[in-house]
Amino acid sequence: MWSRCSARCCQRTSRGQMGAAAEQFNRCGIRAGGELQFRRLLATKTPTRGKWRGRFRLAFYGAAAGGFLVLGTLAAKNRRHRDRISALEKSWPEEVGKKQKLVVLGSGWGAMSLLRQLDPGLYDIHVVSPRNYFLFTPLLPSVTVGTVEARSIAAPIRKLLQRSHGDLAHYYEAEGVLIDADKKVVRCRDTSGVVGDVSSFDLPFDQLVVAVGSRTSTFNTPGVDKHAHFIKEIPDAQNIRTKIMDNIETAYLPGQTEEEQRRLLHTVVVGGGPTGIEFAAELRDFLLEDLSKLYPSIADKLAISVVQSRGHVLNTYDAEIGKYTESEFEKHRSKINVITGARVVEVGEKTLTIFDKSSKTKTPVPYGLCIWSGGNAPQDLVASFAKDLPQQTNRHGLVTDDFLRVKGAANVFALGDCQTNDTSVLTSQAEKLFKEADVNGDGHLSYEEFSVLMDKAQKMYPHVNVFFATAKEALGDSVFASADKNKDNQLDFGEFQQLLKKVDSELTSLPATAAVANQQGEYLGSLLNKSVLTTGIADGSAPFRYRYMGSFAYVGDNKAVLQVPIFGAMKGWWTMLLWRAFYFSSLSSWRTRLLVGYDWSKAYVLGRDTSRL
Amino acid sequence: MWSRCSARCCQRTSRGQMGAAAEQFNRCGIRAGGELQFRRLLATKTPTRGKWRGRFRLAFYGAAAGGFLVLGTLAAKNRRHRDRISALEKSWPEEVGKKQKLVVLGSGWGAMSLLRQLDPGLYDIHVVSPRNYFLFTPLLPSVTVGTVEARSIAAPIRKLLQRSHGDLAHYYEAEGVLIDADKKVVRCRDTSGVVGDVSSFDLPFDQLVVAVGSRTSTFNTPGVDKHAHFIKEIPDAQNIRTKIMDNIETAYLPGQTEEEQRRLLHTVVVGGGPTGIEFAAELRDFLLEDLSKLYPSIADKLAISVVQSRGHVLNTYDAEIGKYTESEFEKHRSKINVITGARVVEVGEKTLTIFDKSSKTKTPVPYGLCIWSGGNAPQDLVASFAKDLPQQTNRHGLVTDDFLRVKGAANVFALGDCQTNDTSVLTSQAEKLFKEADVNGDGHLSYEEFSVLMDKAQKMYPHVNVFFATAKEALGDSVFASADKNKDNQLDFGEFQQLLKKVDSELTSLPATAAVANQQGEYLGSLLNKSVLTTGIADGSAPFRYRYMGSFAYVGDNKAVLQVPIFGAMKGWWTMLLWRAFYFSSLSSWRTRLLVGYDWSKAYVLGRDTSRL
Repeated sequence: MWSRCSARCCQRTSRGQMGAAAEQFNRCGIRAGGELQFRRLLATKTPTRGKWRGRFRLAFYGAAAGGFLVLGTLAAKNRRHRDRISALEKSWPEEVGKKQKLVVLGSGWGAMSLLRQLDPGLYDIHVVSPRNYFLFTPLLPSVTVGTVEARSIAAPIRKLLQRSHGDLAHYYEAEGVLIDADKKVVRCRDTSGVVGDVSSFDLPFDQLVVAVGSRTSTFNTPGVDKHAHFIKEIPDAQNIRTKIMDNIETAYLPGQTEEEQRRLLHTVVVGGGPTGIEFAAELRDFLLEDLSKLYPSIADKLAISVVQSRGHVLNTYDAEIGKYTESEFEKHRSKINVITGARVVEVGEKTLTIFDKSSKTKTPVPYGLCIWSGGNAPQDLVASFAKDLPQQTNRHGLVTDDFLRVKGAANVFALGDCQTNDTSVLTSQAEKLFKEADVNGDGHLSYEEFSVLMDKAQKMYPHVNVFFATAKEALGDSVFASADKNKDNQLDFGEFQQLLKKVDSELTSLPATAAVANQQGEYLGSLLNKSVLTTGIADGSAPFRYRYMGSFAYVGDNKAVLQVPIFGAMKGWWTMLLWRAFYFSSLSSWRTRLLVGYDWSKAYVLGRDTSRL
Repeated sequence: MWSRCSARCCQRTSRGQMGAAAEQFNRCGIRAGGELQFRRLLATKTPTRGKWRGRFRLAFYGAAAGGFLVLGTLAAKNRRHRDRISALEKSWPEEVGKKQKLVVLGSGWGAMSLLRQLDPGLYDIHVVSPRNYFLFTPLLPSVTVGTVEARSIAAPIRKLLQRSHGDLAHYYEAEGVLIDADKKVVRCRDTSGVVGDVSSFDLPFDQLVVAVGSRTSTFNTPGVDKHAHFIKEIPDAQNIRTKIMDNIETAYLPGQTEEEQRRLLHTVVVGGGPTGIEFAAELRDFLLEDLSKLYPSIADKLAISVVQSRGHVLNTYDAEIGKYTESEFEKHRSKINVITGARVVEVGEKTLTIFDKSSKTKTPVPYGLCIWSGGNAPQDLVASFAKDLPQQTNRHGLVTDDFLRVKGAANVFALGDCQTNDTSVLTSQAEKLFKEADVNGDGHLSYEEFSVLMDKAQKMYPHVNVFFATAKEALGDSVFASADKNKDNQLDFGEFQQLLKKVDSELTSLPATAAVANQQGEYLGSLLNKSVLTTGIADGSAPFRYRYMGSFAYVGDNKAVLQVPIFGAMKGWWTMLLWRAFYFSSLSSWRTRLLVGYDWSKAYVLGRDTSRL
């Protein structure tokens, strides 16, 4: 496309010869015609360097023009949105009675993506949540050590609502405590520190979306609630931070024995999932990069243990990723010790007990801080609501159909961590399975018949495996005996069916991640946008399908692991850049992006803060 | 100084004629000589514009050179300091036994300026404080509403110590609970959330500096400890913030009556000193600039009351400043209501009682948040230490001489809010005063004789005034009767002396400000630097003299007031710029400056955060 100007001036002219060059340029311009004129625009002074300068300038102008175009489009879109909202706001007082009342419980990933997706003015929207901000949960482990500020990953709901719905949507800082699906009403209670004359109120609804998330399951391990810390909310992260600092300061007191110092400086992370791993990695960075310098005399006593019940950490990812993470952890000057195939069975005030699955031994371990990042259990609201509905059998959350409608409750939707799919895989085939297993056809299953069936089932359905692994410890190795209610040493069909229900209740269909909640919110938002105009919900709509986009985890020392479909496992320092870029781009607003970007630079330049704040 | 080049080229040449200009420039340069050569350096291309560009460039180069010079000097100084510390660190193990052991209690203004001033290596330094960071207290009111982040005004002690003393100084996160001046030992206790095997230890000292500050005095007002909030530490500010947000959210709940909404949204600030005023001003900004937009339906119910016992707020400043502040507060769309000449005498859960001094009436006032910024009371450690020493009579703090040596305790120094000067102004003249007043010379003072003396004294000594104002309420208007222990309706000399002691105990010699503590710390630092080499402390040293440098207060709406010596009172928006510049320059480190500067810009651009964090 570019025909080169062959005039010597373009090659030899340098800054010192500018006077002559300018004149020659004019002559040269005549010879080379219009194209050179354009090149001159790009490279006025010194053509030799100008060639590159011109390209940079072209790229710069291009980028600037592109940027303006994008910003202009966004501004225009934003403007149209605001105009629409203010037009709606004017007619709202008359309109509001005619609108369906949509109540949303929760302010996490699911609720916020739903609200963002919903067209303003279609519903009379009321949001109820005890937390008046949306929390960018994936960066919570970073908050515990001060790499990122708590405030940077929190966005006030009211601001988000005002942006997408103007003054048309309402928010209440309260907790849903009781759902009456028949009367179509939610009982809400103010659980904040400030209680006014009205501390409890009933919110009627036409449509209800339950997106309250889950709480951390302690698996009924004694002492966890009292002595361990969860990583679920901002106050958790702040408490962990204060405890880390207090542990170190207490270890530093004169006269503290070395044994006690080692106890105080030992942090145990229970659970080798992404949250546990990222916390361990962030803590390791904090210890090595900041604390070791400030507390040189106790630096060598700082230690982290990660206890994982499966064979490898990050077991939902590729096996390769788990192994890489473990090797990374063990490499880091032995700060992190990974203990696999073990469970924490009791947490005391200063000592916890680790049960090794293969050797079946219990070891007491002195510790200073215990982080519990176990599985998920349903919130009280979800558990009590599910109990009221005979169609709800899963102990993990509310069972919905493919359109996220809660089974057994009309006009109620569920999404995110508190939602689960119909998991009666075995129960639905109960009769068939029973007939197959009952070899002698006597209408009962003997222990032998039952064992043969279960061995087969364990190969076909992974959740049967999980059930037996848990049941062995909970029921004392005898699933059969516990299912055999009338103690006749055989199972009749009723007993068999009950057992299958229990087994099925172990099955969670989708991972409890932000990505799932986010996609479900988006899906339900557009479903509700469409269905408000038609006669019924979800008529002719496509069912929800989860698109797996990959998983990240930070493993410390500026390295991350990445699991993506097709490409598989990736790992190393450049994955860390991807990790940051991904989190950065998925932050909910430019405000948050600015703040997190600043925090990262701050931690890099100034180090992390070590005040007990 | 500049002889102008008269050649026309310098006037008429423009960007388009550059080719010719460059040639003419050369010729012109020969005519005008060396000076033009220099001008050409400053203005190469287009002399007409270049004249200004040249000046800017000169200014820029000048500033850059100056900057480099300053940075270079600082870097060199810093380098020398670090070299000295590392040299000291090498010989430290042998040296440490020979050094005097200096224990510093506290980590506030006084302690930190002392530590900064102390030469490294002169003493074996041990710092004890329950707060492991220095807090830039003047900006604490800004933290309550989120204009500034908590972390931005906190600097870890260990980092500050490491900068000034390397690894030579020690810090312990504990609280001094008992000083034994005879045995030269301080008993310390770990009061953090984490308690190890050793939670209490004795720290022997050769020299002790008490700089533990004060706690907020409730004047024994019932309910304050339970229901009101102080503004003293970071957790106070964080609790206030959460309460503000929870109050608003609770007011917003459906069904809340208007009366209850008004109660919840009513903040009462008790105390019209700088802290109370700045909090009210910051809260007003938060309400008007951020919350009104997000909570339009309850915006008109937000209200702030400031209760001040004297005639005007900011009564330690010029009367003009107090009046200006009040008029500013009342102007602002009536958000702030100033109640002067009144005291809060009881704080209930939802209602507090205001006592009007002139009308002598009590009014119950419903409130949602009560901020108590009253006077100062001594910490437990200080009170118990003073009690042990017969020379200590002042109820405000430890009485020192002019060299900050605590009276009655050798080798113990006090500074900051817990220090006070010898205030036995009246007691020392007891005999003289008694003789003067005893007109009839009967060796006793009758009520009339006493009254004449006190009327005179009230004019001469302001603290007598204060004593009578407080005593009237505490003793029921009869100072004479309460002093007359044997109830013979006259005062003998012993009774009179006791009374004067009480009156004198009201006198605090210096204001309880950061500036005083800072100057005292600096003074004591250089005193200890010198005295370590001489035989005794303070031999031939100059006594401490406080230099009053002025006071600032922010009054909201981007306006501040300023009281400086000589210039007197200043007020308005430009004072606000001074206010920011002053705070900015007095921040302890570049790290803190960067963070606070960023916070200010963030609040300006993005608004304050409204999450309940």
